[in-house]
Amino acid sequence: MEAFQEIAVIGLGSMGAGIARALRRSGLSVIGCDLDARALVAAESDGIETSRIPAKAVERASVAVITVVNAAQVEAVLFHAGGIAAAMKPGSVVICSATIAPEHARAFAARANELGILYLDAPISGGAEKAEAGRLTVMASGSKTAFAAAAPALEAMAETVYELGSEPGIGSSFKMVNQHLAGIHIAAACEAITFAKSLGLDISKVFDVITKSAGNSWMFENRIPHVVAGDYTPKSSISIFTKDLGIVSDMARAQKFPASMAGSALQLFLMSEAAGMGADDDASVARLLAGICNIELPPYRQGHPAGAEPDPKPL
Amino acid sequence: MEAFQEIAVIGLGSMGAGIARALRRSGLSVIGCDLDARALVAAESDGIETSRIPAKAVERASVAVITVVNAAQVEAVLFHAGGIAAAMKPGSVVICSATIAPEHARAFAARANELGILYLDAPISGGAEKAEAGRLTVMASGSKTAFAAAAPALEAMAETVYELGSEPGIGSSFKMVNQHLAGIHIAAACEAITFAKSLGLDISKVFDVITKSAGNSWMFENRIPHVVAGDYTPKSSISIFTKDLGIVSDMARAQKFPASMAGSALQLFLMSEAAGMGADDDASVARLLAGICNIELPPYRQGHPAGAEPDPKPL
Repeated sequence: MEAFQEIAVIGLGSMGAGIARALRRSGLSVIGCDLDARALVAAESDGIETSRIPAKAVERASVAVITVVNAAQVEAVLFHAGGIAAAMKPGSVVICSATIAPEHARAFAARANELGILYLDAPISGGAEKAEAGRLTVMASGSKTAFAAAAPALEAMAETVYELGSEPGIGSSFKMVNQHLAGIHIAAACEAITFAKSLGLDISKVFDVITKSAGNSWMFENRIPHVVAGDYTPKSSISIFTKDLGIVSDMARAQKFPASMAGSALQLFLMSEAAGMGADDDASVARLLAGICNIELPPYRQGHPAGAEPDPKPL
Repeated sequence: MEAFQEIAVIGLGSMGAGIARALRRSGLSVIGCDLDARALVAAESDGIETSRIPAKAVERASVAVITVVNAAQVEAVLFHAGGIAAAMKPGSVVICSATIAPEHARAFAARANELGILYLDAPISGGAEKAEAGRLTVMASGSKTAFAAAAPALEAMAETVYELGSEPGIGSSFKMVNQHLAGIHIAAACEAITFAKSLGLDISKVFDVITKSAGNSWMFENRIPHVVAGDYTPKSSISIFTKDLGIVSDMARAQKFPASMAGSALQLFLMSEAAGMGADDDASVARLLAGICNIELPPYRQGHPAGAEPDPKPL
């Protein structure tokens, strides 16, 4: 007979909140944890028990899914005072789905293991909608024991779980290769659609033609509708990609790999963040370029509360 | 009763030869033209009549599809001695499917019109396989009369014909936006897969994971199998993209549009061409980076005649 299992979801941003609801919908007992009071209220309105303190959230949990934003937050959630690694029972498993450098994944796994906690290096891809639907792609590495302990949660979160190796760090390496491409493709899509507008083309038609042609990418198809609609409500923000392409660039530089495409994309995200758009949707790279060049893309109107003023031009 | 129509295909590279066969397969009368004797022999072995001289090839043709490589070749085929514009009957139509700058398309159309010849600015996307299958995407602009005259050929060549406007140059502008993205995506795919290899990842698994994730692009999915197989037999060569991203960069600079992603990709293609890989498959950007960094990708073996030595490393 299997013991009662509760799953803690640490970090209730759009990904974590979606995962928590997907886990709950599949019949698992879920508790959510976040520092942000609004995130806790939202989870509770979905009938999910919450706690503000990670150590409390894992009191009855044998599985914790971590979906915070960066390595510093993962470290705090795991190992600082009130963290989960010291609070969970030995043999419990941490599924770390934050996007972090492989070296951090390896270090966190080693420290968790010292405390008797299993660690799965398990970054995710697919966005908020797939999180909500329990249809994420998980790029995971870790021991067989860690995979086995994580299985019920992974099954409920993901459509596809890639088991990529027994060592932590491999999952995060795959994720960083994905982020390398994702970041470049967003920057390229924004450059292309603004270039198209500068040529006087109808950007809705450009979207139709490109998505049927060899120039298409998952990101072009997903993000360019934000530009066409003038809706920069953040699905995923500029600041996520200054972080992720920053990690890619650090990794590449550390091993003397010249990642010039990633470097160019990073500069465009940095310019967008410098121009005040860090919290806006990552398709805002198009607004940056349009602002610089005085090109008229559809203005930033939608997604705002009724009556709200559209944003001023970024430049 | 419709008059007898013969269609001349000027340029019998992989795209033109595929188009000629697709036209013929759909029951149209086709004549092919190329300067390269091997291309003519190949077409004849497919039962397609040929001529080496453009003016001769259009003696009975009311439609000419031009699939040569660049604007200089289009100009020669149309307007030099032995060219088709002076040889075709007034009211005939030129379908120009070469990838050229919009300003060239506008100029060629004006000169053709002066000679009473209709001109459709009609670049194509989809690659050799879709050309063969008569399932290309055509991005076309021109007068209604030009579209009407071109209709039988377009129907046989294409799965989708986008009618993008009445002015020549618009079709080519759409194509250059596509090439902007296509070139960046090839460079990004090659950088990503070499970066992945430098991290010690299994690149076949990387292909599997990325094609199921948000980092995917049409080009990643189409070109990375060449790297995984070590097969750089040119489907589309490096030199095509030094040309096309060169046009994109010229267009962008002419209107003071900072296309930094396209600029970075262009440099990688230029480096690959400088390293002697201009005639190889455009996925050779991965070989360039692997050679620079001493990273071992699968060696260039396949696609060579049995017993042939694999190429030496590029660097």
